[in-house]
Amino acid sequence: MAQLIADRRDIDFVLFEQLKIQELSNHERFSEFNRKTIDLIVSEARKLAIREILPTQKISDEEGVRFDGGKVTVPESFHRVYQLFTEGEWLAMAEDPKWGGQGMPQTAALAAADYFNGANYGFMMYPGLTHGAGKLVESFGTEKQKNLFLKNLYTGKWTGTMLLTEPEAGSDVGALTARALKNPDGTYSITGNKIFISSGEHDLVENIIHPVLARIDGAPEGTKGISLFLVPKIRVNDDGTPGEFNDVVCTGIEEKMGLHANATCSLTLGGNGNCIGTLLGEENKGMAAMFLMMNEARLLVGHQAFCCASASYLYAVNYARQRIQGKKLGASKDSPGVPIMMHPDVRRQLITMKAYVEGMRSLLYFISYCQDMTKVTDNLDEKEKYEAMIEVLTPIAKGYVSDRAFEMCNHGLQVYGGYGFIKDYPMEQLVRDCRITMIYEGTNGIQAMDLLGRKLGLKNGKAVMDVFAKMAHTGAKARAVDNIKNIAQKFENALSRLGEVAAHMANSAMSPDFEKAFAFAYPFMEVTGDVVMAWMLLWRATIAAKSLIEKPRHQVDFYAGQIKTAEYFIHNVLPVCLGKMDTILESNNAVMEISDAGFGGS
Amino acid sequence: MAQLIADRRDIDFVLFEQLKIQELSNHERFSEFNRKTIDLIVSEARKLAIREILPTQKISDEEGVRFDGGKVTVPESFHRVYQLFTEGEWLAMAEDPKWGGQGMPQTAALAAADYFNGANYGFMMYPGLTHGAGKLVESFGTEKQKNLFLKNLYTGKWTGTMLLTEPEAGSDVGALTARALKNPDGTYSITGNKIFISSGEHDLVENIIHPVLARIDGAPEGTKGISLFLVPKIRVNDDGTPGEFNDVVCTGIEEKMGLHANATCSLTLGGNGNCIGTLLGEENKGMAAMFLMMNEARLLVGHQAFCCASASYLYAVNYARQRIQGKKLGASKDSPGVPIMMHPDVRRQLITMKAYVEGMRSLLYFISYCQDMTKVTDNLDEKEKYEAMIEVLTPIAKGYVSDRAFEMCNHGLQVYGGYGFIKDYPMEQLVRDCRITMIYEGTNGIQAMDLLGRKLGLKNGKAVMDVFAKMAHTGAKARAVDNIKNIAQKFENALSRLGEVAAHMANSAMSPDFEKAFAFAYPFMEVTGDVVMAWMLLWRATIAAKSLIEKPRHQVDFYAGQIKTAEYFIHNVLPVCLGKMDTILESNNAVMEISDAGFGGS
Repeated sequence: MAQLIADRRDIDFVLFEQLKIQELSNHERFSEFNRKTIDLIVSEARKLAIREILPTQKISDEEGVRFDGGKVTVPESFHRVYQLFTEGEWLAMAEDPKWGGQGMPQTAALAAADYFNGANYGFMMYPGLTHGAGKLVESFGTEKQKNLFLKNLYTGKWTGTMLLTEPEAGSDVGALTARALKNPDGTYSITGNKIFISSGEHDLVENIIHPVLARIDGAPEGTKGISLFLVPKIRVNDDGTPGEFNDVVCTGIEEKMGLHANATCSLTLGGNGNCIGTLLGEENKGMAAMFLMMNEARLLVGHQAFCCASASYLYAVNYARQRIQGKKLGASKDSPGVPIMMHPDVRRQLITMKAYVEGMRSLLYFISYCQDMTKVTDNLDEKEKYEAMIEVLTPIAKGYVSDRAFEMCNHGLQVYGGYGFIKDYPMEQLVRDCRITMIYEGTNGIQAMDLLGRKLGLKNGKAVMDVFAKMAHTGAKARAVDNIKNIAQKFENALSRLGEVAAHMANSAMSPDFEKAFAFAYPFMEVTGDVVMAWMLLWRATIAAKSLIEKPRHQVDFYAGQIKTAEYFIHNVLPVCLGKMDTILESNNAVMEISDAGFGGS
Repeated sequence: MAQLIADRRDIDFVLFEQLKIQELSNHERFSEFNRKTIDLIVSEARKLAIREILPTQKISDEEGVRFDGGKVTVPESFHRVYQLFTEGEWLAMAEDPKWGGQGMPQTAALAAADYFNGANYGFMMYPGLTHGAGKLVESFGTEKQKNLFLKNLYTGKWTGTMLLTEPEAGSDVGALTARALKNPDGTYSITGNKIFISSGEHDLVENIIHPVLARIDGAPEGTKGISLFLVPKIRVNDDGTPGEFNDVVCTGIEEKMGLHANATCSLTLGGNGNCIGTLLGEENKGMAAMFLMMNEARLLVGHQAFCCASASYLYAVNYARQRIQGKKLGASKDSPGVPIMMHPDVRRQLITMKAYVEGMRSLLYFISYCQDMTKVTDNLDEKEKYEAMIEVLTPIAKGYVSDRAFEMCNHGLQVYGGYGFIKDYPMEQLVRDCRITMIYEGTNGIQAMDLLGRKLGLKNGKAVMDVFAKMAHTGAKARAVDNIKNIAQKFENALSRLGEVAAHMANSAMSPDFEKAFAFAYPFMEVTGDVVMAWMLLWRATIAAKSLIEKPRHQVDFYAGQIKTAEYFIHNVLPVCLGKMDTILESNNAVMEISDAGFGGS
């Protein structure tokens, strides 16, 4: 099978050589998931993705989603693939089998998801959000709520959503105006208008379950007075049979730049005074619950973005091998044309894509690996350490990764030249689809503020220090390997400089000049992300260098390619990153000092 | 009138304070174009653009271009605006009045074009390419060709195109296979298939004039054997009346990521053996002629990209003033929401956009100004100097500017948050439309190779040295002004470092390791572009600082904003650029050393 969507060799490298997730099977929880089983899972996912889901990508983009009189029709091809997907039990791979999950390691599930999200992530939004909604029910639901909803979500019989945004409450969730009025029977009557609801209404399944943020009458203003409710589209009787329509009306869908295959809905709840929800978790604790889901969702978004970049890279590298155009640089005038892969500037673009795609894969898998470790470790300290590491890396995995993924999709388009811009080829759709990942689940500006404002001070800075220690460990190991000593040293210098930058930012954010600090939150996220990429690539190179020594004739191209990629990134990206660190340490304040009128316009 | 598309104050600043183009009227050629006249021209262009062209932008994107049985139908709204545009005589503003032009300075024409291209550049492709085709006829045509075609092109009675690309001849123009066979009457019978022809067929006007690259039977292989022909869609009789159909058949149009309003056509010439063209210029000298047009076209493309960014910036800054979301950073929980312009990270995005948009405007206007100067100077040395400066700056104006313009459009989209991704707002279309500017008229990779391979060595390096000297002059002047001394110094340091980088690249490109040099062609274009931006912003700041001293209460926000913008760029972008210069000087060769198989995929 051709290398499409995601490079299988690279997936295996991260799973089994970098993270060694086969060793998770030493723990009882994952005892069934030895290497052979995981291999099989990834192979099956790949087959389904390439054979069935990928063929829907372009046609579903063209066909889009239709809205007519409150009904939303998904692309016709989705009915079949949704059935295949749920029948294959792919929706809740890492969840508890008791509720319909497969109980596999999150890392293995993510590898499978590389293929699914890369094949058509507009389609995958339907099961993807369902998984997230299920997670909320699993985490905060009563036994009754779980029994009524959870299994039907994790098996994909019903789908789920996430209702936060309102026209005047986007980044500022606390400004929301949806209301909940307690009924005598303990349920709540919900009223409100929500927008930008992915998969909010559609004809794939018979019921849609909406976790909804709303304010109970009399609750405090702002985020403190927000509660979370479970609001089905069709009410569910106590015996699980469908009840009456729950007054959740889709009033329209958005025309978007990309992601045409997914319905982005405006929903009116209780327009006829007949929308009933049940409290999920405690009163006024809705934001905390939502944050749990948001963190998962942010990792998902980073992964969606990454998958676009991974697919774009493979298309680009395969195209560059086939497309003949121009002579080899310096060749005589009558020389034949060569594949564009031989042109230095095309190679530069390809190795840039390779470096980021592989670095991002390692990062995202590593975070999943940390999640797996929190489930198997008996050591509470270790568990907390892993949890904190996930928290620190989440804004990078969403903000930095989606930024760079979009950039890589653009490189991929560029490799195709004029063909990249036309719809006969997949490149432009990947760019359009990928673009939203920089915005939803908290714009990347919000991610940068999260890193600076919340994560940097987490556990008094210990959380960040633990990530730094892990990076330093990789640096030290690499420095001991002969042919990567040089890049290890450069990485360690950058890491040490990042330490200074982090300390500067932490102090600055707590000083009276905190506005200035936040004007540098974004560059801080960027330099942290760059160093994290270098970390992952150096880690890979260390393994590759050892493999080349131990098995000198074994897969030389792959392993040597790992070293060259790390070398490229560390020599060509880190110095630029160091320049950006200089600007942070200097922190010129023009951004805040320029007057509002000085921006012109109006 | 609202500040839409382009900031009028900023346009006036560049025209009359930075470049002082009113002084061009001291020369007889431009004696009619004093400040008042130019003011009036820009005002009229702005009015037409905002009132008539801008309303077609979104609807023409949605409606697109239709193809049916060889016929292409443009968006319905274009017929009226095309008529208004040509009646207003806006198509050939800077060309010879003898042939239907208006004879105005190129710089003034460009200012007017800011509004036109920003209002709907898909529409402007029809008159834009017409102008380019006219220029070819004016430069290389016989008197007969001029009489038959030129005035009808410059007045927009007919439109024009540019037929280079074939399926297997994109970046490698020399690989083209279109053929020309000389007829006994001196005309040529043309056969071939051309693709990606912007405005190649449509229903706006009665005739379309195609300059076509083809190879005369028996001519040498490669670029040396290429000739240029003038091929009308409808033949033109010697008395100017329309003759028979010239066998130029549109076989299809492309579905594209953006620029939906413009027809991107596949054309078959002489499919029925009945396509006649006349030689334009000399046999086998087609490439040289085409390069003249391509240089103009590249500047146009840079301007198209810039106009998207300019429009995006004004939308973003106006939106950020109105959109209320979130409290002021650090404000108490019950504080009211504030315009997002008050959030540091939004300001960071806006000042980034402002810096690039203004720097790009100055650069593009400066190049036009150089063009004007070549027309009025009596000093041959000076004329050559201006011409060489234009040549050196052209790849920056196309390659660097379109890269950064696309990035700025993305910032603009991001400022809108979720609203940026939906089609109710203009932001996503600007991103989609802008994307092609990085590709057509030579991909930006080709521009980078042009800068390194052709322009760096032009006149033995003197051309580049002259640009450097001009930049150094700005630095020295700025250093003498008190409150910008510090940024002047930083600029001068970066300029001096760029000198080292240029010398390194020049040597390296001529060494046996030239492939490695070309792997750094792109970063070299980027750092050169960064320094050019800083140059322009420092130049602006110098004028602004003097104005603040001379007229201390006059437009303080505007002038102080200029200084803050330069300060932002020089403090925050130049250090990153210096980091990139380090990588160029080091020139790690991983890009060329990694094996083809090492890229994975296949």
